[in-house]
Amino acid sequence: MATDRNGLTVLTVDECLRLLTSHVPRVGRIAFVPDGRPVILPVNYLFHEGSVVFRSDPGSKMAAASACEHVAFEVDAIDPTWEEGWSVLVQGRGEQVTDPEELEHLEALPLRPWAPGAKAAYVRISSTQISGRRIE
Amino acid sequence: MATDRNGLTVLTVDECLRLLTSHVPRVGRIAFVPDGRPVILPVNYLFHEGSVVFRSDPGSKMAAASACEHVAFEVDAIDPTWEEGWSVLVQGRGEQVTDPEELEHLEALPLRPWAPGAKAAYVRISSTQISGRRIE
Repeated sequence: MATDRNGLTVLTVDECLRLLTSHVPRVGRIAFVPDGRPVILPVNYLFHEGSVVFRSDPGSKMAAASACEHVAFEVDAIDPTWEEGWSVLVQGRGEQVTDPEELEHLEALPLRPWAPGAKAAYVRISSTQISGRRIE
Repeated sequence: MATDRNGLTVLTVDECLRLLTSHVPRVGRIAFVPDGRPVILPVNYLFHEGSVVFRSDPGSKMAAASACEHVAFEVDAIDPTWEEGWSVLVQGRGEQVTDPEELEHLEALPLRPWAPGAKAAYVRISSTQISGRRIE
């Protein structure tokens, strides 16, 4: 396994894709820069057809990510006992899904936010770069 | 308890400070924007005297946060069974601690990164804004 200059194991893209698809609970964090200052917010997500997908309410802080050219998404798992863990980072563009056919398709997926609110808007992060690291 | 427009409970600053100080494991995530595109990285941290403190190796991706005017730090806890959780967001400026007296003080703290490497550099995020939300 390759390691980076900090001694962390570098995950292959295939491994990152596997973790993005299979890891539960499906809670990650998004970061974007709405006003020059980055924010990080937890989000219920699905990784579907190469994109991170999440739901939001119009006008919410989360919804602002749908208009951001540069969005980051991260998911990780941490084992405090062994002091191990991994994280996967997806970088890409945020965009609200508006195509009716695609929306119908997404609405059929098991993507149900824990937070209250209708969250009828679907936001996609089209990944341009996927990377991951593991401490072991 | 106050709720925001998305129905999430708004944590008071006191509650955020309590969670930042007491939550274990002491693993959070930092976001910064090294080249116009945000990144999110997990990090072992301490919250000490009003600042998030973490260690890094010179030249590492993490070390880049020490030169960022705008850095975000997030810590959360998630309960998949009850679909509840909270998150606290710290926004501030990243800076490497260079004062010898302060460094000596920080080196005595129980801040030990899980990742390999000496991680002799101490980075502080001086918080300018602290906010938090809870889903319950």
